[in-house]
Amino acid sequence: MKMKSKKVAIVGASGYSGEVLVQLLLGHPHAELVAVTSRQNAGQTLAQVFPKFASHPKSKTIRFTEPNAEALAKQADVIFLALPHGVAAEYAVPLLQAGRVTIDLSADFRLKSAKVYKEFYAHDHPAPELLKQSVYGLPEIYRDEIKKSLLIASPGCYPTSILLPAIPLLKAGLVKPTGIIADSLSGVSGAGRKAEVDYLFCECNESVRPYGVPKHRHLSEIEEQLSFAAKTPVTIQFTPHLIPVNRGILTTLYLEPKGKLSDDKIFACYKKIYGDKPFVRLLDGKNLPDTKNVVGTNFIEIAWRLDSRTGRLIVMSAEDNLVKGASGQAVQDMNILCGFPETAGLV
Amino acid sequence: MKMKSKKVAIVGASGYSGEVLVQLLLGHPHAELVAVTSRQNAGQTLAQVFPKFASHPKSKTIRFTEPNAEALAKQADVIFLALPHGVAAEYAVPLLQAGRVTIDLSADFRLKSAKVYKEFYAHDHPAPELLKQSVYGLPEIYRDEIKKSLLIASPGCYPTSILLPAIPLLKAGLVKPTGIIADSLSGVSGAGRKAEVDYLFCECNESVRPYGVPKHRHLSEIEEQLSFAAKTPVTIQFTPHLIPVNRGILTTLYLEPKGKLSDDKIFACYKKIYGDKPFVRLLDGKNLPDTKNVVGTNFIEIAWRLDSRTGRLIVMSAEDNLVKGASGQAVQDMNILCGFPETAGLV
Amino acid sequence: MKMKSKKVAIVGASGYSGEVLVQLLLGHPHAELVAVTSRQNAGQTLAQVFPKFASHPKSKTIRFTEPNAEALAKQADVIFLALPHGVAAEYAVPLLQAGRVTIDLSADFRLKSAKVYKEFYAHDHPAPELLKQSVYGLPEIYRDEIKKSLLIASPGCYPTSILLPAIPLLKAGLVKPTGIIADSLSGVSGAGRKAEVDYLFCECNESVRPYGVPKHRHLSEIEEQLSFAAKTPVTIQFTPHLIPVNRGILTTLYLEPKGKLSDDKIFACYKKIYGDKPFVRLLDGKNLPDTKNVVGTNFIEIAWRLDSRTGRLIVMSAEDNLVKGASGQAVQDMNILCGFPETAGLV
Amino acid sequence: MKMKSKKVAIVGASGYSGEVLVQLLLGHPHAELVAVTSRQNAGQTLAQVFPKFASHPKSKTIRFTEPNAEALAKQADVIFLALPHGVAAEYAVPLLQAGRVTIDLSADFRLKSAKVYKEFYAHDHPAPELLKQSVYGLPEIYRDEIKKSLLIASPGCYPTSILLPAIPLLKAGLVKPTGIIADSLSGVSGAGRKAEVDYLFCECNESVRPYGVPKHRHLSEIEEQLSFAAKTPVTIQFTPHLIPVNRGILTTLYLEPKGKLSDDKIFACYKKIYGDKPFVRLLDGKNLPDTKNVVGTNFIEIAWRLDSRTGRLIVMSAEDNLVKGASGQAVQDMNILCGFPETAGLV
Repeated sequence: MKMKSKKVAIVGASGYSGEVLVQLLLGHPHAELVAVTSRQNAGQTLAQVFPKFASHPKSKTIRFTEPNAEALAKQADVIFLALPHGVAAEYAVPLLQAGRVTIDLSADFRLKSAKVYKEFYAHDHPAPELLKQSVYGLPEIYRDEIKKSLLIASPGCYPTSILLPAIPLLKAGLVKPTGIIADSLSGVSGAGRKAEVDYLFCECNESVRPYGVPKHRHLSEIEEQLSFAAKTPVTIQFTPHLIPVNRGILTTLYLEPKGKLSDDKIFACYKKIYGDKPFVRLLDGKNLPDTKNVVGTNFIEIAWRLDSRTGRLIVMSAEDNLVKGASGQAVQDMNILCGFPETAGLV
Repeated sequence: MKMKSKKVAIVGASGYSGEVLVQLLLGHPHAELVAVTSRQNAGQTLAQVFPKFASHPKSKTIRFTEPNAEALAKQADVIFLALPHGVAAEYAVPLLQAGRVTIDLSADFRLKSAKVYKEFYAHDHPAPELLKQSVYGLPEIYRDEIKKSLLIASPGCYPTSILLPAIPLLKAGLVKPTGIIADSLSGVSGAGRKAEVDYLFCECNESVRPYGVPKHRHLSEIEEQLSFAAKTPVTIQFTPHLIPVNRGILTTLYLEPKGKLSDDKIFACYKKIYGDKPFVRLLDGKNLPDTKNVVGTNFIEIAWRLDSRTGRLIVMSAEDNLVKGASGQAVQDMNILCGFPETAGLV
Repeated sequence: MKMKSKKVAIVGASGYSGEVLVQLLLGHPHAELVAVTSRQNAGQTLAQVFPKFASHPKSKTIRFTEPNAEALAKQADVIFLALPHGVAAEYAVPLLQAGRVTIDLSADFRLKSAKVYKEFYAHDHPAPELLKQSVYGLPEIYRDEIKKSLLIASPGCYPTSILLPAIPLLKAGLVKPTGIIADSLSGVSGAGRKAEVDYLFCECNESVRPYGVPKHRHLSEIEEQLSFAAKTPVTIQFTPHLIPVNRGILTTLYLEPKGKLSDDKIFACYKKIYGDKPFVRLLDGKNLPDTKNVVGTNFIEIAWRLDSRTGRLIVMSAEDNLVKGASGQAVQDMNILCGFPETAGLV
Repeated sequence: MKMKSKKVAIVGASGYSGEVLVQLLLGHPHAELVAVTSRQNAGQTLAQVFPKFASHPKSKTIRFTEPNAEALAKQADVIFLALPHGVAAEYAVPLLQAGRVTIDLSADFRLKSAKVYKEFYAHDHPAPELLKQSVYGLPEIYRDEIKKSLLIASPGCYPTSILLPAIPLLKAGLVKPTGIIADSLSGVSGAGRKAEVDYLFCECNESVRPYGVPKHRHLSEIEEQLSFAAKTPVTIQFTPHLIPVNRGILTTLYLEPKGKLSDDKIFACYKKIYGDKPFVRLLDGKNLPDTKNVVGTNFIEIAWRLDSRTGRLIVMSAEDNLVKGASGQAVQDMNILCGFPETAGLV
């Protein structure tokens, strides 16, 4: 029996995440892309804005429109918001009122606390009443909740790379909730398609640099989720670095074991939670994560090393910041929510 | 006897060419950098704008100022203009009236014909009366003229990479002035430090693309200079491509021999003109030019191959677009004009 | 009705083309990958050699074996040879005798002339009697022949980027068969996964260089195919350059129009041959080819410019050297030969 | 009065460190390069092996020879060893017996403990009696000792990037000697000019990966030096990552303050030790280290942030692994040892 398709729309489809969303949804077996919006590209076809999609039959018929929540609610069953924080909420409110599934890729609905939102994003939350309703769209952790919600907050790129390796260990009590350090390296697409000097080719190529030290905005959702897992407030150290690749995040986590740990115990802990999860790849043997093995895919690679000299547990992960760290994960959320196979359109 | 130093200033010192000029002049044994201007950075020190120069003693005392021709004429003996075309002329006029040596890195004084300027730059020439006075600052060809002029038009990056390999052959009548093709590959710094989406890291990395086909602005000065060399009007085919490196231009020239050519004849022709020129490196043996051998230097590498199958002569060159193709060459011009050793501050 | 699957094998699956073949065939709806061979990796699973495939269910059951033509003929219906020239023929002979479809990615069966093979590859052709039987696997040109052959010679990466833009124009007599120049830029994967100093990261990054000037081996098949199209012997100028990207070839062709040409005429000429071809993308408007729009796909982008100043026609193309220039094209050949949809497993 | 020049030689001059040494010594005002050795390049001139040096007058007269300690001792006053560990000691012994200054860039003389050497390098130390005599060539810390020694062990690239930021804080007792984490990112030249698949362009480009986790060899010298500074045994966590740049190391250090710390205290601590050191650049204001500001120079950039949320001190450094992390530092050692200005040939 053929699965019933959903009509989908993307609000803000001209950035890097939006572009990957277009690609995934054009190739999705159960989704029909019916609308894309973009203030700057309104009036142009998909083929004109993204020459790489020009061979897809729909690329010449789908035209960017000015974003309009009412119109979108009429056209689509599922709406993806690929907008800056603060702006996304403006569209989410009317879309939810119209009963539409809303999958937001911004930070607007990732936190449960409007106060923490204000601390980290420097303005009042635009729709605090929705924070209770929204589900943090990390499918490996919140599968059941995702199925039942209309509002999904797709996690940030750095948070995904940190939470997936850390949550099982914290939940199982294998590591301490204190002293956690996450050192992350991100490709430049993480900064978005913004015309800023800092992200010009010549400023990023042959350059490596930390930024946002010591209080990056993503800390808010990372710590909130780690606290849920540990059932105690967690504060971590997080240092992002910009490296000259287009896509990919590599995170190195420094953790302190609680009690005596072994590779077998760690493997069992991960296996229990991720054994049946299609996009988490636990590395065995001598392999360590490498972004080039996951770029262009929705997979995350995880490996670990116990250091007998220092007593620490080092966990490393690699993902594509635009796929598992953004648009791929959002599609995975849609798949779960709509009852499609979890991997539909993603492998 | 110690050579007398010149006081030098840079107008428009915050772009890539300006930055390299700052670097070269801070390290120059006979130049004293006394002023740098930049609308956007006025008030800041060199160290603040360019952290890489922060260890130079002058970096904390030299502050960017608003550009002001009158003030500059009082401060400096030699003024470098690293400005967009059209704007450079505004400063050149008063500086020359004040008797100051003006070395312009823009296209404003490279052409002898104001008509051709208008054809290629789409606006009237701002100071056509100066075109007769200016000297095209290609030191290997115009050494004597440079010595005697107050206004030097430092050649463009692509033109340098094409003219130095082509002029000797045309002058000697070894190749036909017709049917010339120049296929060039440039690093992204050639586009300048402009906040435009097209030059973002993710748009240039893992990308190769032609642009400005078939009528790039630099054709105007290339063809004018080739015509002088050939003593007949020359029209060429020129295709620039953008490649993901910071710096470097690689040009491949396709030429038709006039009469029977041999490697010895070609070598003799180049040797005659470039034998005593410090920055032209003729490659022998099996070596072909490679931008990595010249980046960061004022050298240009030149090699050639006669193709017995097609009868053509292929000449290849490599240079750093910001050094030999811009700021290094401008300093070389200053050295010649001021009577300094030609290589001062450049090796 | 479900299409009947074919069992396929890859000989020499550990290089870059082999890796892409594995990827395409693991995801192919009508092909079942049953064997991969590699001397150096014999005994290891696909997952061990290519961690990026580790999440595919077959990656842990398919093990590399020593290549053995007899065994392969028993296991598979279609065998891809991703081997060096000279070696491929050794396997093709017994596989064809056993009646197996053989798709060779090397240069061994691309030429009709064993003499030209010897001239360019410096050794006698290992199986000259098969040259008549083989079909040059350029699907847009040889679709009908591919359907009927057991031995397909998948074209080289540079040749594909030159032939697809040039053949229609030559066939239609729109351009002269003389004076053709092809200036090509290739990513480093074109050199294969060989442990040679020349292809180390630090030797290629921030470097651009020509090589193989003026007589690259690929000239042999390029000229043979252009001669067939023009119905007269064609000799061209071909200059390959190495640029720091992983994948992608950008070719700029310089052609001389025969008679008066217009954009409409050129478009009509291409449209006639490529209008129904799924992987050729003719660019309209202001777009020029960019490798980043085709990398990871089997598409080739083609655009052109008539230069009224020089009278020349400039045609530019972009492709992924490992997909349309190698493994994707080989799969496209298989699709046609086996009666699968031409785009199966490729979009 | 002109400073007396020293005759210098380089053993193993064909790797990346060797190449940078050649460059620095060819341009050094008080050093005369008289000999370079290389097994694989013996007989060739500098110009043949390194086309980039071909314009230097000496490049055509200096020829690579087979390494021979006796001959070198006759030719040169100062000999740089750019050889693999284990091999360097073979040359050091006879050179020291002949009374020559020996500056070793390998790991052979960096440790005081032959036992630790064996633990980390997996073979007995080849000349343990020399370990007492050698001085760890970190000029900012061991200036006085360097002046008096004949045998200098130039520090490793990672150690330099970790020790310079950490030592002053440990010496002053501002941070605890426990719980230190160093997370480092290195360009590919750190792996040397070795023909290995892992370092091919396509394996490193668009890739980021940790390696050598958790016990990299450089830990031995890092911990020995930190222990000297802290006057107590120090064990640290060190995670190196490979990133796609040619040159540059970025290190992020995680430290725990001992008592109450302030920016002023930290600045005063660094200023006291590095205030008069020409190559340490303490960043103020909002600047964070960026490898592009130090590549090609002997500078190291250092910045720090106190995190009031976690109580930790984050210190970040950036250096060129081949200059301050290898050959530049070795030349700085020579300058100090020979009584030249410390910055001679380095700025």
